Amino acid sequence: METVTFFGLGLMGQGMALRLLEGGYRLRVYNRTRDKAQPAVQKGAEFFKDPVSAVSSSTVLITMLSDDNAVKEVVNEQVLQELGQGNIHISMSTISPAAAQDLARRHGEKQVHYLGCPVFGRPDAARSGKLRLCIAGNQEAKTRVRPLLDVLGQEVYDFGSDPAAANVIKLAGNFLIISAIEAMSEAFSLVEKNGVDPNLLYDLVTQTLFACHVYQNHGKAILEQRFVPPGFRLALGSKDIRLVRDTARSSQVPMPLASLLEDRFLRSLANGRAEMDWSAIALDQRDSAGLSR
Amino acid sequence: METVTFFGLGLMGQGMALRLLEGGYRLRVYNRTRDKAQPAVQKGAEFFKDPVSAVSSSTVLITMLSDDNAVKEVVNEQVLQELGQGNIHISMSTISPAAAQDLARRHGEKQVHYLGCPVFGRPDAARSGKLRLCIAGNQEAKTRVRPLLDVLGQEVYDFGSDPAAANVIKLAGNFLIISAIEAMSEAFSLVEKNGVDPNLLYDLVTQTLFACHVYQNHGKAILEQRFVPPGFRLALGSKDIRLVRDTARSSQVPMPLASLLEDRFLRSLANGRAEMDWSAIALDQRDSAGLSR
Amino acid sequence: METVTFFGLGLMGQGMALRLLEGGYRLRVYNRTRDKAQPAVQKGAEFFKDPVSAVSSSTVLITMLSDDNAVKEVVNEQVLQELGQGNIHISMSTISPAAAQDLARRHGEKQVHYLGCPVFGRPDAARSGKLRLCIAGNQEAKTRVRPLLDVLGQEVYDFGSDPAAANVIKLAGNFLIISAIEAMSEAFSLVEKNGVDPNLLYDLVTQTLFACHVYQNHGKAILEQRFVPPGFRLALGSKDIRLVRDTARSSQVPMPLASLLEDRFLRSLANGRAEMDWSAIALDQRDSAGLSR
Amino acid sequence: METVTFFGLGLMGQGMALRLLEGGYRLRVYNRTRDKAQPAVQKGAEFFKDPVSAVSSSTVLITMLSDDNAVKEVVNEQVLQELGQGNIHISMSTISPAAAQDLARRHGEKQVHYLGCPVFGRPDAARSGKLRLCIAGNQEAKTRVRPLLDVLGQEVYDFGSDPAAANVIKLAGNFLIISAIEAMSEAFSLVEKNGVDPNLLYDLVTQTLFACHVYQNHGKAILEQRFVPPGFRLALGSKDIRLVRDTARSSQVPMPLASLLEDRFLRSLANGRAEMDWSAIALDQRDSAGLSR
Repeated sequence: METVTFFGLGLMGQGMALRLLEGGYRLRVYNRTRDKAQPAVQKGAEFFKDPVSAVSSSTVLITMLSDDNAVKEVVNEQVLQELGQGNIHISMSTISPAAAQDLARRHGEKQVHYLGCPVFGRPDAARSGKLRLCIAGNQEAKTRVRPLLDVLGQEVYDFGSDPAAANVIKLAGNFLIISAIEAMSEAFSLVEKNGVDPNLLYDLVTQTLFACHVYQNHGKAILEQRFVPPGFRLALGSKDIRLVRDTARSSQVPMPLASLLEDRFLRSLANGRAEMDWSAIALDQRDSAGLSR
Repeated sequence: METVTFFGLGLMGQGMALRLLEGGYRLRVYNRTRDKAQPAVQKGAEFFKDPVSAVSSSTVLITMLSDDNAVKEVVNEQVLQELGQGNIHISMSTISPAAAQDLARRHGEKQVHYLGCPVFGRPDAARSGKLRLCIAGNQEAKTRVRPLLDVLGQEVYDFGSDPAAANVIKLAGNFLIISAIEAMSEAFSLVEKNGVDPNLLYDLVTQTLFACHVYQNHGKAILEQRFVPPGFRLALGSKDIRLVRDTARSSQVPMPLASLLEDRFLRSLANGRAEMDWSAIALDQRDSAGLSR
Repeated sequence: METVTFFGLGLMGQGMALRLLEGGYRLRVYNRTRDKAQPAVQKGAEFFKDPVSAVSSSTVLITMLSDDNAVKEVVNEQVLQELGQGNIHISMSTISPAAAQDLARRHGEKQVHYLGCPVFGRPDAARSGKLRLCIAGNQEAKTRVRPLLDVLGQEVYDFGSDPAAANVIKLAGNFLIISAIEAMSEAFSLVEKNGVDPNLLYDLVTQTLFACHVYQNHGKAILEQRFVPPGFRLALGSKDIRLVRDTARSSQVPMPLASLLEDRFLRSLANGRAEMDWSAIALDQRDSAGLSR
Repeated sequence: METVTFFGLGLMGQGMALRLLEGGYRLRVYNRTRDKAQPAVQKGAEFFKDPVSAVSSSTVLITMLSDDNAVKEVVNEQVLQELGQGNIHISMSTISPAAAQDLARRHGEKQVHYLGCPVFGRPDAARSGKLRLCIAGNQEAKTRVRPLLDVLGQEVYDFGSDPAAANVIKLAGNFLIISAIEAMSEAFSLVEKNGVDPNLLYDLVTQTLFACHVYQNHGKAILEQRFVPPGFRLALGSKDIRLVRDTARSSQVPMPLASLLEDRFLRSLANGRAEMDWSAIALDQRDSAGLSR
């Protein structure tokens, strides 16, 4: 059984760490602030004040950090050196494919395996091992960590040997989710302003054409204007749509809907909604239509 | 049992007419061109060359025509006069709420009941009685035609007493569908241009987040570039997004995604794709990204 | 010298009517409300309560009305019959090319000349004969009314024999103006939110790259947030951008910037800015950027 | 008189270097490829193979490089060390305000003055000393280099003491230019597809509302479809609109028109137009409208 080090005990990371402990893994954790590590420490995790010590005797490093820069800074040369040849870094943060490629190259120089492994699912899914994991990278390394992944997720989707591929998929998936939120926001405001109860539209489409998770859950939240506490913070959604746009740019793919969404998020941020759920872009649509006056 | 007159034997109308005949209804049909009426006539429908004669002894008129103007022109004063007081017009075309209100008013003057009843479903659903019907209007009239509606659809959704409400819902529903097509088109092109097989994204999302009809069916068509024969013509989709925009305008609801879609359709029309399926807007996205060069 | 009838004594029409009176023309005026006709009547115009009587002995009819429907309703069959064969209607309202074509056809049936003649310029230019006139239609008719046009405008631009051509030009011109307003609104908010005084940008560009009327005047108004009283009402600007979009639609020309502008106007209307100057769309941009919080 | 080192002898830099030589300055030049330095060398400039040697005995460094990274890489620690305390770097490239701030900080550490000084003008203006210079930074340093700036430009605009302010202004200015190009592209295609000669629109507006440089020059190029050789390469325009968007992002300013423009550029790049003039985005609009079929 692998000895696992975990970096990043935010909303998602905490649940995942607890899950690994329950799965019988010996866990070493590092987090910028100690208090967030407390729940894991109480269940048996060992806390380290610096990332290098945290990886010193582990065979697998898992990171769940906020963005490209956080991963690049924390998983630096010394950490890779200490993690050591033949060991594996499972990188679960939502980062750009470009960052993933850069990280993979730097890992390769130290002969550490880099697996891209972003996840779909909210904190409750992290806590209960119901995440959906998108993995890509070296085949042997993927096989080796499979038991560990099965503890964290209900399903593992394999996207081949290029670690960045998993990140492309993750970004495209988040783009699809937020596009659905936008579409519902506009549709509901149209219906409401034409004197029809938007719940009727919701009931119709979520039982038929769109009888699926994203429409049912986010649609309900929008109609009930239930945006706090956030399942996924609008500020993080904004980061993801930015990564989508950046990836679109560098690959010369015009994405007018992604552009529209980025502006929608910027308006939401500029008007104080960073800490709400990302489906709160619906409030901006209501403002636009004069429905919140 | 009502005697039914049917106007408009296009792709949808033909299937509905045959379904009614199979359901035991006496059917009188009118269509601008006779050849499209042939299948129904062979099954026992009576063909009329003019709309007034066609409604002369019927208690229910069903229309399934192309747009606002077609309905207004064909269902004129004489037709209403001839259909006569106490009888019912079930208006199933996708028309604007504004046109529905205008029609309802004019029907009221002749004491004919006007029921707004747009449908969701493709020609095969029309043929097999699997449509989803969105009805609104006078309660008594709705009750009276319910047996007939049950022959045509698998489910009837009631949107109250204002006939235009059903049209608002229909437009909002079509907007949601085409928004999903747009989102997938952009996502697939992003994934493909970053060297990842878009089928992998499709498989992931249609089994999980978007395990529903619209994503599964349209997504598959986009990936296989299967746009002819059309399930729903792009030219008609363009008309519908125009109605969405017109309704948004008149109710002062900014809908940036709808605007983007209208331009997408205009580009598709200007480049010769009117007769393809409306999901062929994905081809325009491919052109945009240089994927079709 | 022609005897002139004038329909539509709004902000623009009043100035034009006074100008014609000062130019020595005998003027017969009609307006829905009498009070707006008062200034012209005091200078010698004859007021009529109905449009038919107003054109009975005139050789030229000028209309300056709010939109397509207003022109179509007021200049009806009886008015054309009364104006009579060989006489001329100079249609100065900003209307759609489609409406212009329809009007021209109906005038032709009565052998009345229809000249499309929309104008550029604000009420003060109307009052002082400084308008810029865009004329199109029958050559002989254009020559006949030229002296009259020279009283109203500082320059006449001829767009050929199809009356609708002048309307296309007028709509394209208004689109260019509002596009410049949008561009400045976004640029100023970017500059301001990055800690730089937007007046510095204004001073630089209006002395160099954009040393022209539209940037100088509207730019100043935006910076000073001087939107009342309106030079041109936002509600009317909204109508014009709608006509641009309608013309783009019917000719299958995607215009993403026009779409964006229409949504900007809808947001402005939905938030109570209909009676401000159309450059007040800059306020919506400020709201968007959180600058007005 | 200052001894000047010049980095970056592209289209713009070459003209500026020659101009300085003609102004009597002793010039030391560095460029990645030597051939581009040839014209300056022939007029007396001294060529250096590495940037450190090139600045060794100079009091002023001028850079005119392609982007943020180029400036950061070439003007590295050693170069700053060698340039030395009390000397001045005039940074004329169009770079992001964020990069300017970072550079200013790093210069400060070596007590080298960093002046932000992006320019408006094309290669012919660079060659003839007709540039417009936007300067910001330390007042004393600005005063010291003023004679040199007067050789390069017809006018110097001062934006205060924060070097990044000049870059914000430059980006906003370029955004205004490309917005005007977009507006004209859409307007011309609308007019043309409605059967009216777009030259008539051009003549009208460039004599009246838009009687200024940008509309006159770019409008003419668009109508004549004269996009090669480029005055300013579309690939560079794309970089600039990206910087606009990045600056908008980091300051939370939604800029829907800038977003639209970025997608327009991406479409143009994806379809092989990188080496044309940036006004060639008009070709994409023509494609969109089916005018180039």
